[in-house]
Amino acid sequence: MPEAEPMVTEPLHTLHPADIADQLQRCEASEAVAELVRLPPKLAAAAFGELEAERAGELMALLEADQLRSLLMDLPHPEAADLLGYLSGERREEVLRSLPAELQDDLRLLLRYPEDSAGGIMNDRFIAFREDRSLAEVLQHLRTRPVDSTEEVSYLYVTDPRRRLIGIVSMRDLVFRKPERTLGEVMNREVKSVRVDMDQEELAREFEHYHYLGLPVVDDRQRLVGVVKASDILQVAKEEATEDMQLMVGLSGEERALTPWQRSVGRRLPWLCVNLATAFLAAAVVNLFEGTIARWTALAVFLPIVAGQGGNAGMQTLTIIIRDMALGELSPGDGRRALFKEAVLGLINGVAIGLIVGLVGWVWKDSPELGLVAGAAMVLNQLAAALSGVLIPFGMKRLHLDPALASSIFLTTVTDVAGFFFFLALASLFLRSAGMH
Amino acid sequence: MPEAEPMVTEPLHTLHPADIADQLQRCEASEAVAELVRLPPKLAAAAFGELEAERAGELMALLEADQLRSLLMDLPHPEAADLLGYLSGERREEVLRSLPAELQDDLRLLLRYPEDSAGGIMNDRFIAFREDRSLAEVLQHLRTRPVDSTEEVSYLYVTDPRRRLIGIVSMRDLVFRKPERTLGEVMNREVKSVRVDMDQEELAREFEHYHYLGLPVVDDRQRLVGVVKASDILQVAKEEATEDMQLMVGLSGEERALTPWQRSVGRRLPWLCVNLATAFLAAAVVNLFEGTIARWTALAVFLPIVAGQGGNAGMQTLTIIIRDMALGELSPGDGRRALFKEAVLGLINGVAIGLIVGLVGWVWKDSPELGLVAGAAMVLNQLAAALSGVLIPFGMKRLHLDPALASSIFLTTVTDVAGFFFFLALASLFLRSAGMH
Repeated sequence: MPEAEPMVTEPLHTLHPADIADQLQRCEASEAVAELVRLPPKLAAAAFGELEAERAGELMALLEADQLRSLLMDLPHPEAADLLGYLSGERREEVLRSLPAELQDDLRLLLRYPEDSAGGIMNDRFIAFREDRSLAEVLQHLRTRPVDSTEEVSYLYVTDPRRRLIGIVSMRDLVFRKPERTLGEVMNREVKSVRVDMDQEELAREFEHYHYLGLPVVDDRQRLVGVVKASDILQVAKEEATEDMQLMVGLSGEERALTPWQRSVGRRLPWLCVNLATAFLAAAVVNLFEGTIARWTALAVFLPIVAGQGGNAGMQTLTIIIRDMALGELSPGDGRRALFKEAVLGLINGVAIGLIVGLVGWVWKDSPELGLVAGAAMVLNQLAAALSGVLIPFGMKRLHLDPALASSIFLTTVTDVAGFFFFLALASLFLRSAGMH
Repeated sequence: MPEAEPMVTEPLHTLHPADIADQLQRCEASEAVAELVRLPPKLAAAAFGELEAERAGELMALLEADQLRSLLMDLPHPEAADLLGYLSGERREEVLRSLPAELQDDLRLLLRYPEDSAGGIMNDRFIAFREDRSLAEVLQHLRTRPVDSTEEVSYLYVTDPRRRLIGIVSMRDLVFRKPERTLGEVMNREVKSVRVDMDQEELAREFEHYHYLGLPVVDDRQRLVGVVKASDILQVAKEEATEDMQLMVGLSGEERALTPWQRSVGRRLPWLCVNLATAFLAAAVVNLFEGTIARWTALAVFLPIVAGQGGNAGMQTLTIIIRDMALGELSPGDGRRALFKEAVLGLINGVAIGLIVGLVGWVWKDSPELGLVAGAAMVLNQLAAALSGVLIPFGMKRLHLDPALASSIFLTTVTDVAGFFFFLALASLFLRSAGMH
């Protein structure tokens, strides 16, 4: 627990590591390194473990080999492994080889797991005993263990001779059952665990669904390899859930507001080009009717209204579907119900907005014909927007793609193309029939 | 811990409450009630506590008074209070009065706290002792307590005679320190707590920033009133973080994909009307230049491209800023750096896309003039998009509004108005200067 509410004016070493990291995040890299080496080593390591990936990588490049070494030795294993992950293969090897053999082995093992898997998040230090140990023995063992590793323990794990997880014992049972009994006698065999290669998004969903406070992690042979706590999963859960916001508009999930622009250009420009290609598609529809617009230029004024309203309504539908998917509240079977709901909404909103647009078109341009065409196109486009807002994410999922990926670009393509087409085709029909009379 | 991996084909009573709730979420309300009363009471209550708000409210309306009463008595207090919150004032009073006096008092107290505050999430059952109690006494007390309330305890709270929180004692200290010592002697006085009226979004941020596994909750007189665990905060954290996705496009944060359409119409239509008003604003800009378009109808073809690209680029910027704010990674002081980054990106992307559009305009319409005008307008609009993507959310924050609120509507207003104006004004200037020659 932190000592006090953090204050920016206090000297760094009185702050909680997370707040020191906030400060180190904000200053120049060289200044941050200078501050870091001035801190007590344990605190420096703890603060370093709280830094964001990008910044941690920057600072590591500036640290001397022995500073890096002492930092890694003071960090919990998962954080140390994360940091090593930012180093280039060569430098990583060099740093690893400078560490004590046991730590080296532990970290190499952790480095084998992808950063976004249970193995990449879990802590590989946990308390496990064989089932033939008596409660008295276990208590005696815990009593002599260093403080930090048992502080927040509420369960002990029981493993067989092959290190496979076979049960859990609560602290309560450990303390209150007869001391001569063995772990095997008091343990609960119905123990829920997760696989080390489980994706962190799925892991977060498990924690949320079942309200776990902690879960043991096992490898493909059921051997206990680590523990994940709910507090480790919180940041992951938020990041994963909000990643979709960025994917929708054609951003990499990893980009942050302060990611250097040099790195952002290459990530954003390709999607802007995709959007441009779809914009040309929509423009080609307008081009088909250039003759119609030449005869009736007021159409050009209403063109963006019909398309833009479709885009906004479609984004409402799309966003709600993608958020529900991210929160794990929508199963594939719910697609039909959502489609029906959105179609009804699209029709109602379409008629309401179509009426307003129709009236404004009539009054503003003194043309009931324009009002009629704009209003009718609006109804049709709101419906198209609603349907594509549901069908795009469910379709992407069916194709085993991320439902959010660039979905807003695809959606506005539909609403632009459909909006332009409905509006201009109706206008053109109208002109033709009026010309016939 | 759940017994086994849930399977849809299993009878309901063998499932984890969270999975039963999933099933009850999907069937007809009357069917769900029938299933519910068939379950063992404790399990029914647990499953009910896992239902989503909307569904829970529906089912409660269908339950008889005594069924509701027994459900509430079997639920943990926070869930019971949440459920009571869905009832109308009159029915709530009636149900409350049917409950045992002590439970009634507890629930009335919890009902006083807003649902989205620490008080609305916390569990009001916790273990607190006075500081003069010996460790032996406390252990004896815990030994005789019912199992469920101490199962996941890793800290005990110490309060003074006025029930004010003065310290915590870890399970480790309780078990391993000399039994004749008092809590006051072994407790840690540096105890972090949160206020009962703290907003759940801020609470989630505290948990995430400091990796707490649990936090005590105190009222305005520092009296201990409850405890919040990291596992309680997970769902809240995800919901709060993703709420912004919906706010951005003019959706209520509470709406879900399967919210009945009757309720959605009233929430979405107003924002669609706001969007319509801004669309008319953009249309008015086009209207200013109707004469220009009449003379040069190819402009109508390129009009949506310039505006649409601005909209997409602006949404990228806006989304990244809002996500960073939601993740708590962006402080007000970072605004200037983000603005600079986005301006640089807007310029680079603008020039790249402006060149493509210019070339296409030239080749497609065989008009270098059109290419020049479209390309130049594109550069200017990409810059406007980048700046407004940063300034809108930071501006909203400065005005103490939610930075996400309808921000995508405001953003596309800027990119439409600016895009149309830059493009048509440049074209008009061009026509005029060409006419002068």
